[in-house]
Amino acid sequence: MMLEVCAFPKPGNVDRCHDYRETLLEHFLASAIFSRPALEHAEAGGAGLGALIREAVRATSSHRGGNTHFGAFLLLMPLVAGGDIPGARAAVSATTVEDAVAFYQAFALTRVRMLDQDPLDVNNPKAITLLRERRMTLRDVMFHSAGNDLVAREWVEGFPLTRRTADLLRSHGCGRQAIVATFLDLLATVPDTFIAKKHSMRVAEETMRKAAEVRAGTRNLEAFDRECIDRGINPGSLADILIAGIYVALGEGWKWEC
Amino acid sequence: MMLEVCAFPKPGNVDRCHDYRETLLEHFLASAIFSRPALEHAEAGGAGLGALIREAVRATSSHRGGNTHFGAFLLLMPLVAGGDIPGARAAVSATTVEDAVAFYQAFALTRVRMLDQDPLDVNNPKAITLLRERRMTLRDVMFHSAGNDLVAREWVEGFPLTRRTADLLRSHGCGRQAIVATFLDLLATVPDTFIAKKHSMRVAEETMRKAAEVRAGTRNLEAFDRECIDRGINPGSLADILIAGIYVALGEGWKWEC
Repeated sequence: MMLEVCAFPKPGNVDRCHDYRETLLEHFLASAIFSRPALEHAEAGGAGLGALIREAVRATSSHRGGNTHFGAFLLLMPLVAGGDIPGARAAVSATTVEDAVAFYQAFALTRVRMLDQDPLDVNNPKAITLLRERRMTLRDVMFHSAGNDLVAREWVEGFPLTRRTADLLRSHGCGRQAIVATFLDLLATVPDTFIAKKHSMRVAEETMRKAAEVRAGTRNLEAFDRECIDRGINPGSLADILIAGIYVALGEGWKWEC
Repeated sequence: MMLEVCAFPKPGNVDRCHDYRETLLEHFLASAIFSRPALEHAEAGGAGLGALIREAVRATSSHRGGNTHFGAFLLLMPLVAGGDIPGARAAVSATTVEDAVAFYQAFALTRVRMLDQDPLDVNNPKAITLLRERRMTLRDVMFHSAGNDLVAREWVEGFPLTRRTADLLRSHGCGRQAIVATFLDLLATVPDTFIAKKHSMRVAEETMRKAAEVRAGTRNLEAFDRECIDRGINPGSLADILIAGIYVALGEGWKWEC
């Protein structure tokens, strides 16, 4: 999480050189620091993924910077609990209805964007009752969201984009530049679902096209970053994927230091 | 440590906008993150200050960024173990010869600047034998260095500059700007002993005078920062004091968030 947020320029997202008005670099770093006990619990085993996500969200909601790492925790908890991507898949498959309930409780602590008029929206007070009635596990909840959420899709499909991100990091060498190059690769090829929910799929796809132009050398990276920041276009889902990919890559021996 | 290193512009030191060639923002943040178990041990009690400092230095010497927080750990360990400044004074008074030995072992793991031709220099293989022969506690070691080291002086004099720093932070309000303003106050009034050892006392005093001009509005802050970075004039001892002051201020209810 620290290496991700420091890398710059990452178009549209908080990075070493850019804040949002309400959410600052220090909020992301505080969130990374505050989440450590929950991540250590995940590594030690013994708690369900839902409870672990709730613990991380609770530990990191004390600052006023809004949602910082919700999606990242969703990806990191199975990866840390499982040790690697195959382990994460197994952890996801083993989730229960209680994991789903704990996840909804975590959700309620934050203000993550949901699509309107969904009976399983966390803001619907009957949602937890519905979860229990339908006997939905946390994986089932993710299945429900996978169509419009990159992070949920990772849960359902077995972390393919996380896998690709870790491979991209290695292919790009080391240091901040490898992180930025990997982020651009993702941004140029995957419509960000956070942008799609906040703005529209049209804006998400437009952002993807512009990122591809940056990669092709026909658009200026810094100007694109500036435009995204000014328009509030922040590819938050791909930032979460990037964090998961960095975690996997480091676990497989990738070195940030050059 | 995180709030300190992110605040900018801090003339001469690594901050959000500046790295040194070998020591990057990420090294400081990794060091802050890696030191957490040692700081938790300090808070839980049961280990001597020398062993705690050694543990923190061991935990943070895995990166290639060189010395990042050695002086900060020297100040933080008594503060965290003691809970506040009076507690830190008591912890310092209770140090033993074994604390001094552990501190020298910590020293040997890093490359902190020492004055030449000191028989108690860590590079002198006989130093630990001398410590035992002379029955020097860690506080005695600090007494030995207090004349030319701000951090050691805090140990010997009961953390007066840390106290002043915490008070300055409160007087400057909140956020990054309070940290920067406090740092400038320190820089304009106290010759930095890290600069004195690396360059000379003349350079340390010249830096102090220029910082006073920045504070008086007759010298540009960014240009001064640039000049310090270019000349390798980094006020590392005052950065350590600033970290200790932030810790004390937060413990006394100062809020970073505005």
